[in-house]
Amino acid sequence: MLSDIEIARNAKLKPIGDIARSLDISEDYIEYYGKYKAKISLELLKKLESKPNGKLILVTSINPTPAGEGKSTVTIGLGQALAKLHKKVVVALREPSLGPCMGLKGGATGGGYSQVVPMEDINLHFTGDIHAISSAHNLLSAMIDNHIHHGNKLHIDPCRILWKRALDLNDRALREIVVGLGGKRNGYPREDSFIITVASEIMAILCLAEDLADLKKRLGDIIVAYDTEGNPVTARDLKADGAMTALLKDAIKPNLVQTIEGVPAIIHGGPFANIAHGCNSLIATRMALKLGDYVVTEAGFGADLGAEKFLDIKCRMGGLKPDEIVVVATIRALKMHGGVKKGELSQENLDALHKGFDNLKRHVENMRKYRVPVTVAINAFAEDTPDEVELLTEMCKRIGVKAVFTDVWARGGEGGIQLAQEVLSVLENQESKYEPLYDLDLSIEEKIEKITKELYGGSGVLYTPEARREIKRITKMGMDKLPVCIAKTQYSFSDNPRLLGAPDGFEVTVREVYLSAGARFIVAIMGDIMLMPGLPEHPAAENIDVNENGEITGLF
Amino acid sequence: MLSDIEIARNAKLKPIGDIARSLDISEDYIEYYGKYKAKISLELLKKLESKPNGKLILVTSINPTPAGEGKSTVTIGLGQALAKLHKKVVVALREPSLGPCMGLKGGATGGGYSQVVPMEDINLHFTGDIHAISSAHNLLSAMIDNHIHHGNKLHIDPCRILWKRALDLNDRALREIVVGLGGKRNGYPREDSFIITVASEIMAILCLAEDLADLKKRLGDIIVAYDTEGNPVTARDLKADGAMTALLKDAIKPNLVQTIEGVPAIIHGGPFANIAHGCNSLIATRMALKLGDYVVTEAGFGADLGAEKFLDIKCRMGGLKPDEIVVVATIRALKMHGGVKKGELSQENLDALHKGFDNLKRHVENMRKYRVPVTVAINAFAEDTPDEVELLTEMCKRIGVKAVFTDVWARGGEGGIQLAQEVLSVLENQESKYEPLYDLDLSIEEKIEKITKELYGGSGVLYTPEARREIKRITKMGMDKLPVCIAKTQYSFSDNPRLLGAPDGFEVTVREVYLSAGARFIVAIMGDIMLMPGLPEHPAAENIDVNENGEITGLF
Repeated sequence: MLSDIEIARNAKLKPIGDIARSLDISEDYIEYYGKYKAKISLELLKKLESKPNGKLILVTSINPTPAGEGKSTVTIGLGQALAKLHKKVVVALREPSLGPCMGLKGGATGGGYSQVVPMEDINLHFTGDIHAISSAHNLLSAMIDNHIHHGNKLHIDPCRILWKRALDLNDRALREIVVGLGGKRNGYPREDSFIITVASEIMAILCLAEDLADLKKRLGDIIVAYDTEGNPVTARDLKADGAMTALLKDAIKPNLVQTIEGVPAIIHGGPFANIAHGCNSLIATRMALKLGDYVVTEAGFGADLGAEKFLDIKCRMGGLKPDEIVVVATIRALKMHGGVKKGELSQENLDALHKGFDNLKRHVENMRKYRVPVTVAINAFAEDTPDEVELLTEMCKRIGVKAVFTDVWARGGEGGIQLAQEVLSVLENQESKYEPLYDLDLSIEEKIEKITKELYGGSGVLYTPEARREIKRITKMGMDKLPVCIAKTQYSFSDNPRLLGAPDGFEVTVREVYLSAGARFIVAIMGDIMLMPGLPEHPAAENIDVNENGEITGLF
Repeated sequence: MLSDIEIARNAKLKPIGDIARSLDISEDYIEYYGKYKAKISLELLKKLESKPNGKLILVTSINPTPAGEGKSTVTIGLGQALAKLHKKVVVALREPSLGPCMGLKGGATGGGYSQVVPMEDINLHFTGDIHAISSAHNLLSAMIDNHIHHGNKLHIDPCRILWKRALDLNDRALREIVVGLGGKRNGYPREDSFIITVASEIMAILCLAEDLADLKKRLGDIIVAYDTEGNPVTARDLKADGAMTALLKDAIKPNLVQTIEGVPAIIHGGPFANIAHGCNSLIATRMALKLGDYVVTEAGFGADLGAEKFLDIKCRMGGLKPDEIVVVATIRALKMHGGVKKGELSQENLDALHKGFDNLKRHVENMRKYRVPVTVAINAFAEDTPDEVELLTEMCKRIGVKAVFTDVWARGGEGGIQLAQEVLSVLENQESKYEPLYDLDLSIEEKIEKITKELYGGSGVLYTPEARREIKRITKMGMDKLPVCIAKTQYSFSDNPRLLGAPDGFEVTVREVYLSAGARFIVAIMGDIMLMPGLPEHPAAENIDVNENGEITGLF
């Protein structure tokens, strides 16, 4: 069997200019980055302003398990299947981070015969967007310490600097550090930390900005520290917003690539789905909606995190109206939710599947609360048995949702034809009456409680004293009418990663609350969120190489 | 008067494909990065292997002073002047680092009407080469600490880790840090440091590598630490070399841009001129020599540092034969070397010019020791008086070198016609019999002594005990037959930045010696070399902005 990178390399790529032409993008709006990547000018959005939008299809999933659910693969495969049905379709995805790619998880460009290409480029530096974010992020960091070093006119409290440094790699040694050692010429010693770039507020900002002017406004709004009197100090106060915007002037433009079957894909932005909203940029989605009649996009982690934020933050902020939601599940993963251990997933187990189905069921019901039509995609694994498939289909039917078996990993678009047909039929027959789950006018606590009770199935919310204090402060600042962005484990509806399935009656604890003033949401952290991953004992990097033809091997 | 960025923005750029065609590069060998930047495939070098090389002209200078000497500007202006004389010319330059650009110095793309464009792009992220180097560098850093964290099978001595971390920004707070704090899950606490990326050994390696295979070999050779028994531990031992090469697979390809007058410019690689060799990549120079009949290139700092390394390291390693050397001087800077203070440079001062001329004289004589013909370029400033120009021309004549007044900053190629004519006449009438200054077979101390006495004018070399110890170790390892790369102040022939002019009889002190095993040279550090600059009180970044048309302002 061929590896993902071999399949990707065997694909016959079209020149990216051909892909652009297939979307009626004229040369004036395209900047080439090599033969198979391009950036699309934001001018095109203005030009197409009055053109009606295509249909927006969100792909989300059950809570992820180590068994895998294949959300990106289904997103890409569904796009390819719609194209096989002669629809004008654009896939919109997030940009992968280098960290996990060199670590454990591998890249994030789909798999098998449902991939975006050139996968090596997309997984490594792509068009440099994430590097630009790292630069802008660390420029701001340097300007904070530099300001204090040169007299601290803004009276920044060195003990209350909120802005950390960032690197697009997994590096546990940088989680907790002390900087500014070695005497006065090196500044002043203080505790600091590096986060992975995709966790930077700048990534979230880039993905929610309307245009370059809004980007600059939002960058200026970033709260980097408090002064000695407790007032926020912003990036604008440090005069960093202009240079940061300059560094991001190309990164804000969405990137055009293609799937392995030549379907146009826009890949742009990739914020964390815990402390940020976890989906590709608003600009990319808007561009895709102007270019395609059908846009297939995805949101990070399970529907409790990624889809919730897509619907409550991104769609609301950007005035998007999702037309349909596809929830991806695998029989393997549902069996894990039903209590089966990782080693025993290949055996048929109808009881476990029955039990684990509750996880899928709750996600489907949750999505309906947004009044958007829902379809389930069963992403095939070789060991799925006919009885298991039948049971799952039947259980879905009982809750009024159609489940469609898809085999896009092995068969590409062809393996998703049935799903595509069902998606189209739903679009035709069921109208989306999308509305967000909660009102922005609710208090911060009310918003968190609503999500916890209505989506997670929890019974209540506890707060640490620090979290309470911060909620008070944000409310006093008059910033409490922003959406909340909950950071919690992706593995469970609760804040306990071991509570699989569809747990009930649990309480979640909000340990920390902070304002992402540039991104314009309030982050509520439940549990232990790691913003700088580490490498495993044998990092994926050990197997990556370049062969005598200059081709990359070992990337997955 | 227009600022550099305004002049650059007013320039009518040709599509980069047109520039490529003017050099007979077919589309197959070009990868576009936007409309005005491209990478050239290394395959082209293979294809053109049997084509004879063009003439190689190195532009170097007197010791830099705060008065400025304008080496890049003259390099670009001379290229433009040669083009005006209908010569097929390629300019080869270094890539600017983001750090100084956001700090004090501004960009490094020439000035006035002798600039390379698009200057904003070149000064900011360009084609991402430096970001790729940062990624490869920090991946190796992460893999070192990760290896120790997971059991340390290689028995790396945590107190003897040589490999630091890197960032392409000025950030003094990162000069001396402690990483790995916060308990066992974050590794183990140790002292560490960030250097600016252009000081990374990977930058030096990229600039000396023959091709992708040589790049990988050299990356693998990097000594990252010593084990508990004192044996070197390499990047290859950590299995990092393959992934690092993969991260650099595009960065190794030279970048094609143009000057403001549409002359082709290859800009690729930019290593420090102190702890590294300070000139653009060997691959870029080779490519330029195959594409142009005349190649104008530059080396960092003054001729004692940049040109010495260009001649003793790069040309020797890469089998290049320089045909002519242009030494740039300004009357202002020579007056500073003659003792005039910065505030008084605008007044005519023939005595000071006479005295300061000794600096230029020694550089000219030094360059002749390499048996390469030399020409002097007097880079014009508005306040230069006719008497000063005459005196300088006359003094040059007396030492047998022609000095040509150039005005390329204000007049572009037109202002360099005379210089170009003289350069061509020298090429026609004087043959280069280039040979390096020293034999590689000499001992490390003998090599350092030869450079100190024959080029710097010093009387002897002192060594710290640590430096002696390291020389012994390197010699024992059998690595002493490599060239030496001296890191010292650029402001003086000596290791004391305040000793201007042409000092004599001084001793230099070698404080530290280390092996750059991947770059394949031995670094000898004289004085205090700063590998991570800081930002000034008001960083250039404060003035950088993006206007309503999406154009960058305030960059210089």
